[in-house]
Amino acid sequence: MMTETAPALRIGVAGLGTVGAGVLKILAAHGPRLSTHAGRPLVLTAVSARNRAKDRGVDISQFEWEDDPVALARRDDIDLLIEVIGGSNGPAKAAAEAALARGAHVVTANKALLAAHGGALAEMAEEKRAGLRFEAAVAGGVPIVKALSDSLAANAISRVYGVLNGTCNFILTEMERTGRDYQDVLAEAQSLGYAEADPTADVGGWDAAHKLALLSTLAFGASVDLDGVSVEGIERISESDIRFAAELGYRIKLIATASRDGGQTLQQVAPCLIPAESAIGGLDGVMNAVVCEGDFVGQTVFEGPGAGEGPTASAIVADVLELARNGAQPVFGQPIQRLTPLRRMPPENVSAPYYVRLKLVDRPGALAEVTGILGGTDISIHQMRQIGGTPDPASVVIITHEARDGDLRSAVAKITNLEVSLAPPMALRIERA
Amino acid sequence: MMTETAPALRIGVAGLGTVGAGVLKILAAHGPRLSTHAGRPLVLTAVSARNRAKDRGVDISQFEWEDDPVALARRDDIDLLIEVIGGSNGPAKAAAEAALARGAHVVTANKALLAAHGGALAEMAEEKRAGLRFEAAVAGGVPIVKALSDSLAANAISRVYGVLNGTCNFILTEMERTGRDYQDVLAEAQSLGYAEADPTADVGGWDAAHKLALLSTLAFGASVDLDGVSVEGIERISESDIRFAAELGYRIKLIATASRDGGQTLQQVAPCLIPAESAIGGLDGVMNAVVCEGDFVGQTVFEGPGAGEGPTASAIVADVLELARNGAQPVFGQPIQRLTPLRRMPPENVSAPYYVRLKLVDRPGALAEVTGILGGTDISIHQMRQIGGTPDPASVVIITHEARDGDLRSAVAKITNLEVSLAPPMALRIERA
Repeated sequence: MMTETAPALRIGVAGLGTVGAGVLKILAAHGPRLSTHAGRPLVLTAVSARNRAKDRGVDISQFEWEDDPVALARRDDIDLLIEVIGGSNGPAKAAAEAALARGAHVVTANKALLAAHGGALAEMAEEKRAGLRFEAAVAGGVPIVKALSDSLAANAISRVYGVLNGTCNFILTEMERTGRDYQDVLAEAQSLGYAEADPTADVGGWDAAHKLALLSTLAFGASVDLDGVSVEGIERISESDIRFAAELGYRIKLIATASRDGGQTLQQVAPCLIPAESAIGGLDGVMNAVVCEGDFVGQTVFEGPGAGEGPTASAIVADVLELARNGAQPVFGQPIQRLTPLRRMPPENVSAPYYVRLKLVDRPGALAEVTGILGGTDISIHQMRQIGGTPDPASVVIITHEARDGDLRSAVAKITNLEVSLAPPMALRIERA
Repeated sequence: MMTETAPALRIGVAGLGTVGAGVLKILAAHGPRLSTHAGRPLVLTAVSARNRAKDRGVDISQFEWEDDPVALARRDDIDLLIEVIGGSNGPAKAAAEAALARGAHVVTANKALLAAHGGALAEMAEEKRAGLRFEAAVAGGVPIVKALSDSLAANAISRVYGVLNGTCNFILTEMERTGRDYQDVLAEAQSLGYAEADPTADVGGWDAAHKLALLSTLAFGASVDLDGVSVEGIERISESDIRFAAELGYRIKLIATASRDGGQTLQQVAPCLIPAESAIGGLDGVMNAVVCEGDFVGQTVFEGPGAGEGPTASAIVADVLELARNGAQPVFGQPIQRLTPLRRMPPENVSAPYYVRLKLVDRPGALAEVTGILGGTDISIHQMRQIGGTPDPASVVIITHEARDGDLRSAVAKITNLEVSLAPPMALRIERA
């Protein structure tokens, strides 16, 4: 237990956007209490950003200033660098490396950086006995990193899944609430500041994939494998899919799932149906939620704001407190050389029930051709309905029993080529809640 | 960062009931991985229980045996005592004290012990630089202790609330699902092993009160004040209250709430209405869930199994890992001498909306007498309905606007004394979600 006569922990903040400013606000609001909690004084020494003069709603005049984040990281009056610049390369990476190289701790909210270079940075950190923490990089204010690396460490984890991107969840929730289509709601999200001008990273599923790759590593003790994540975005989801799903008791969410079976790991980001009554199914707006399944604990759920100034800064300061108290820990819950290479599970062998929406010409025998193909590909039908109230009476929705992903894909390809098929079928996995 | 050449952490387990056996099972299943995670070997040295011969589904022959838990706690080949005997006094307290007195760590699942003697035990622990951890004491497998003491430490917490007793939640869920009454479902819960033969601690709200007193301390940095918790159980809840609440969009849960305002703390355990659509409102069966509100993070929710062998043992082992890695930390998140005395908020000054169910004689003017009393006590009505399908046509349910607790109580007393009132009104607070 440290006492308050322990030396101060001197902090530098690289990046003074929303999150960086949030960190300054927390330290200004709760500084003395946080130092008590840390068992030593926390002192913000210096900051760096692109524009010193910009108004950020916080006074930065009392801190040393650096134009260059790498110069900040190299200052010998900094014991800990908070990196909130963003981006998987460039100044964020250079600053983190510069800090770790001299044994200074790094706290970051940068999922892209860690998903791309987490292994190398962790190696550098552990070699120098520096800490590298990233609670804020996954699900913002939700302490899922600490939960997986510490609180649930007694368990063999079999699956981690949830909603890791607030922008997508906002868009899907709004589409459902208002009956508007994807493009329309995306434009609204952009005007509200919930989606970027170039929304690809969010709506294409990449942001969630970065976060999932980090959660897999924590859950399974395997090295970060971003390339092993299969990624599909929400761009194809139509308002009618959302409505049909709701009529069957489901909601459509962009689900990130990592599961392990027989030493192999499956990592998927895709829009899925999930029971409306479940914790994930009930999640609205920009919230994030993660479900963990462990062999002793069973299912636990962690839910909260996945982004934004306050929540993200809250997670960063928690990491600072942890480092102030306990110093460096293994970055991914166990020493980096203990992480095993991740063995990818071929997705085509994985089974799940599916939602399949078809558009068929309205003539006798059309549906029989489709069901013939499904039967011939070993896919059995659990529910089938012509959805009421659709403008096109030949819209048919099928819920399958568990089917192999490979079989489903092959059936969809065959159905697409049928003459009676007016559009390629829309197939979505149903995630078990 | 510790290396694997660090000395072993030698563990003794006092109590081999369900939870103690669960700990042994986790160590047997995941021992080597846990030692890697801990950065040092974890070695189970000795155990103690009432009956050595009892079959617990785990082999205890390789461990040293003590009949007396205090003798176990005093063994010099034990660095950490896991206390899972239970009870606020007697052998559990004696064993914990004996371990702490010689500087050995204690990990416990014993909320009754800590709610009664947490301050004194923490003082002893911190004086001896021993750790005292209790993740398993609140909400079983849900890591809410760590969340409040570490992950959310950047925040000033304004409210912590949730469902902390699985037995009550099971009973209320079953009453709702089956339309059966309280006594009937309680008997079923007893036969299923979800409720004790003497169910008072659970259904009377005391178990939740113990847990709430610990959460308040963590959230607000105030000393444990079990006597300051106002406690009301679920015994008075009728199947019709549950049904009426559902018709208005609410569910009835045993809610434990601790909130802080102007330096004063309110601690309440009581059956409340809560919106059915909320995270807590959606909680079924024996699950627990806790919502935390912080000034920067906003609302976060933690949910999972609140009791049982696996979940509770999982939380205990997480505490063991934490002590193995980081040694002793302040027991309640900050040094015990920093905890301020808890200043109680007088509940009569607190405002909330209320559900009030009345049974009136069926004659003109009866309701006017009631509304006259409410109006005269400064309580305004938000909704009023004669609930359809009730056997008694004069059952009236009123949802009030925010009303002072003191005013509500005084109005209820006056209504009880009315000649037109056939039974005392049932008044339940509506918890804000």
